[in-house]
Amino acid sequence: MIVRSQQQKWLDNWSRFVPILDWGLHYQREYLAGDLTAGIVVGTVLIPQAMAYALLAGLPPQIGLYASILPPIVYAFLGTSRLISVAPVALDSLMVGAAIAPLAAENTPQYLGLALLLALMIGAIDILMGVFRLGFLVNFLSQAVISGFISAAAIVIAFSQVKHLLGLKIPQTESFPQLLTYLIQGITAINWATLTLGTVSILMLIYLPKWLGKYLKKLGFIEFTIMPITKSAPLLLVIVSSLLVWFFHLDRIAGIKVVGKIPQGLPSLTFPNLDGNTINMLMPAAVAISFVGFMEAYSVGKFLASKRRQKVEANQEFIALGVANISAAFTGGYPVAGGVSRSGVNFSAGANTPLASIITALIVALTVMFLTPLFYFLPQACLAAIIVIAVSKLLDIATLKRLWIYNKADGIAWIAAFLAVLITSVEKGILFGAAVSILLHLWRTSKPHIAVVGRVGNTEHFRNVLRHDVKTCPHVLAVRVDASLYFVNTKYLEDYLIQAVSDRPEVKHLVLVCSAVNSIDGSALETLKSLILDLKTREIEFYMSEVKGPVMDGLLKVGFIDELGKDHIFLTTDRAMRTLECV
Amino acid sequence: MIVRSQQQKWLDNWSRFVPILDWGLHYQREYLAGDLTAGIVVGTVLIPQAMAYALLAGLPPQIGLYASILPPIVYAFLGTSRLISVAPVALDSLMVGAAIAPLAAENTPQYLGLALLLALMIGAIDILMGVFRLGFLVNFLSQAVISGFISAAAIVIAFSQVKHLLGLKIPQTESFPQLLTYLIQGITAINWATLTLGTVSILMLIYLPKWLGKYLKKLGFIEFTIMPITKSAPLLLVIVSSLLVWFFHLDRIAGIKVVGKIPQGLPSLTFPNLDGNTINMLMPAAVAISFVGFMEAYSVGKFLASKRRQKVEANQEFIALGVANISAAFTGGYPVAGGVSRSGVNFSAGANTPLASIITALIVALTVMFLTPLFYFLPQACLAAIIVIAVSKLLDIATLKRLWIYNKADGIAWIAAFLAVLITSVEKGILFGAAVSILLHLWRTSKPHIAVVGRVGNTEHFRNVLRHDVKTCPHVLAVRVDASLYFVNTKYLEDYLIQAVSDRPEVKHLVLVCSAVNSIDGSALETLKSLILDLKTREIEFYMSEVKGPVMDGLLKVGFIDELGKDHIFLTTDRAMRTLECV
Repeated sequence: MIVRSQQQKWLDNWSRFVPILDWGLHYQREYLAGDLTAGIVVGTVLIPQAMAYALLAGLPPQIGLYASILPPIVYAFLGTSRLISVAPVALDSLMVGAAIAPLAAENTPQYLGLALLLALMIGAIDILMGVFRLGFLVNFLSQAVISGFISAAAIVIAFSQVKHLLGLKIPQTESFPQLLTYLIQGITAINWATLTLGTVSILMLIYLPKWLGKYLKKLGFIEFTIMPITKSAPLLLVIVSSLLVWFFHLDRIAGIKVVGKIPQGLPSLTFPNLDGNTINMLMPAAVAISFVGFMEAYSVGKFLASKRRQKVEANQEFIALGVANISAAFTGGYPVAGGVSRSGVNFSAGANTPLASIITALIVALTVMFLTPLFYFLPQACLAAIIVIAVSKLLDIATLKRLWIYNKADGIAWIAAFLAVLITSVEKGILFGAAVSILLHLWRTSKPHIAVVGRVGNTEHFRNVLRHDVKTCPHVLAVRVDASLYFVNTKYLEDYLIQAVSDRPEVKHLVLVCSAVNSIDGSALETLKSLILDLKTREIEFYMSEVKGPVMDGLLKVGFIDELGKDHIFLTTDRAMRTLECV
Repeated sequence: MIVRSQQQKWLDNWSRFVPILDWGLHYQREYLAGDLTAGIVVGTVLIPQAMAYALLAGLPPQIGLYASILPPIVYAFLGTSRLISVAPVALDSLMVGAAIAPLAAENTPQYLGLALLLALMIGAIDILMGVFRLGFLVNFLSQAVISGFISAAAIVIAFSQVKHLLGLKIPQTESFPQLLTYLIQGITAINWATLTLGTVSILMLIYLPKWLGKYLKKLGFIEFTIMPITKSAPLLLVIVSSLLVWFFHLDRIAGIKVVGKIPQGLPSLTFPNLDGNTINMLMPAAVAISFVGFMEAYSVGKFLASKRRQKVEANQEFIALGVANISAAFTGGYPVAGGVSRSGVNFSAGANTPLASIITALIVALTVMFLTPLFYFLPQACLAAIIVIAVSKLLDIATLKRLWIYNKADGIAWIAAFLAVLITSVEKGILFGAAVSILLHLWRTSKPHIAVVGRVGNTEHFRNVLRHDVKTCPHVLAVRVDASLYFVNTKYLEDYLIQAVSDRPEVKHLVLVCSAVNSIDGSALETLKSLILDLKTREIEFYMSEVKGPVMDGLLKVGFIDELGKDHIFLTTDRAMRTLECV
């Protein structure tokens, strides 16, 4: 018995770091059906996606597939979210391309090597973030900034695919304005066959699922069987288009670019080469990608977990994603994260445990072992169409609208991040956005709401003299500040109070109502002291009321209360006013 | 009559922008005595100081004098502080030297030209800050950072003078570690005569005023006459030491370095040459110096104004300092600001109005017109001693101690700024310090104080269950968050609440007590919405109580209240609990 309970303890401890010990050992038979379907459905979604995203990062398609085998399995062992699908994602792929392109030419061993190194660095950063419990740092990116950033990135990604949809040959570029000029210049060289194929593919990806869904429903299929079929639209597109190209030799006679030869078999073990200089150059990108990847995975993980009343732990997530990325670095892959839409599919396809992701990974493994030759005639335009449709859902103007109505500052932060991404680059964009939202926050808090208060009738309540009909006395001024006091806002408070007493020469006592002051930092305390001296020279006594427990503790510790005098601190404003003969 | 009142209105309007219209037109005869003495006393302090600070900036001594003529007069017309003495100051002089030295060799026309350009740029920045009412930006520098920054700068300045006190010839350097190594290497080449003179000068500057003060008191002099005499100690030192060097030919026989020939006569009109490239290179320094100069002038100005129950207006101060700096740029000067110690002298010497500064300026003007030859034999060691004594008062460890006891974060910010200045440079130091204090503030606010609350006895009061003995009900959870909700801290709140309800499976209603929530930003609102959805899936209803007026207005505007349901918002926590049958 004791042994059992000890064993139990041991398990509980370890399952916090290796969650598979939790869900694996409590796995129940009835989970299997859901996990199996979800695993297969996500597989059909992932295979074309993985190849497309690899191309987006400037890598050969098989790299995307390699990154979809070991990483999801590793994550299944360590991740606290049971439903997210870890593999290549659009946003990270774009950032990877942007980071590597300046350092090496595409389709060179150097380029592949840098992708591996980047995955290793991101993995290391993630693990450090998790171990040192720095998960909270991602909170410094406001929701406004993230939304603006992702929206702009979606646009950049979509336009990066236009050349494939038009069959244009234009140089690789990471600058959006540059890309636009290239597209406009090249517009005359459109390959109409490619354009047609691309357009048809997009329309098919939009309408086929809807149409198929309606049709199957008419035939009396149940929702649970319809969903998997509709979700496999991208795979259908891949198969059909490949067959068309192969049968009509469209690649040769119509000049439609195809994926071409993809090596068969599992990836061989790879070792990123650790060059200090290169690491320095990649560091900013690695940090940015690690943050972005984590945010995406964490937010979707939390969202899905809530639907199943499960919990996701930020720091353990960082570690799980970190190990997953490192596993990618050693198996010929590139940086991975948790995809939003894909994880959604996994959830709605009925996944119960990470076993679904393991099944998906096995399907991808089988594909690279036996089916890659089938992708020879796969047109790049189809993959481009899949990317465009995938990211089109990310453009999020609705949030901008909401934020703008509620508070301009958040709207400005959204726009700042959005424009910065389009004008400069994806990394600079998110950093700039973060800086803007922090400064706007400081600016907003630099002018806190301050109210002169008076007594409501004969009650013990005191309210804003401007909003309510209250009683005040000429010789006592009671002021309530609705903010914690810290270096950014205390000078404003000081100026306000000095102004207030200079406007009221008859004031002899100033009572600061601290009911809304949750903290007072060191600089604020210094300002408060100089304010008290200033008031003394004006023969005005300073008092405080309704000081909160934690704040009081701090003020006592530094002897501020003794300086001020215990008789100058009151529990309630009412008591203060009575003592100062203002009833 | 009407005409008169209109004239009055006109004056009031204009005197806000040209304060001399206020004090000038209301000047009273009894002010004159004080203004005259103060003007003369500050003159005796300023003349040696101005020359010393110019040398500190790597400029010839007369430049310091030129910068002490027109700028203070201009400031007298436009400044809102009636007591500060605008002229060269130690901190800015150091920063000016650090900014220019890399771009030109000392004692070259280029070097002088850059000093003029810098003054012009600082002036322009100041004016823009004032016009666009950005004075509040200086609040982003916490008192901790400023104190740490100034303390380190004082050390850097003091050590930069050691070579003059030891008579060493060591290369100019802006890096403190570099400077130290030079001093240690050069230590053997000490000129003992210079060292003796330097030491005597320092001792004289420390003890002569005290001794003289005591002695004169014994002789029955009154305080008001003693002070001016003691304050003129630096001038006495300058005269005596110059005479000694001249009489004994110490410059030739003992190798004591003297100031040498100073051109006679008022400065001629100068025009900074506006080279875009140079402007770009000087911009960071210009911004930093403009901020530092303003902070020093503004804080001392406010402090002195409070003693006379006067007011200082931040944005008008920026404009006044800006025009003063521009005037320096066109009269052969270099950047100026309001000196702390000098302004203190002006105040205690009985200055009543800016007329005192005008008198000082005239004294300096007369000096450059007729007395500069007398400074030929003035030893640089004396000027170095004057600088060392002047800045020694700036080292402010006491503040560090206080901050550290009260709250570590502020102490860390102090140390960060202090070390950054010593290790990197003065500008980088203040920027780094500012960044650190902002991040520490965000970090501190990222984990707000949250308390589960319960009813105190049968009252309407609700308190922290951990601090008080209170009543709670299993099916209702009331939580009070002691912070405004914004993007940095809402995720923490969300996690806390999810954890709280998962720990209490019997909870059916969650009440968020918002008595301490002064604002909710857009990102926080989004998080709140997703939290509510999350709770719904757990079949838990979400309620809010004690929402403040301004916050409520915002929530109503975006229809959040309608979404949540009006019946889910309660004026008081008591009412909420009664409605949820928890009494």
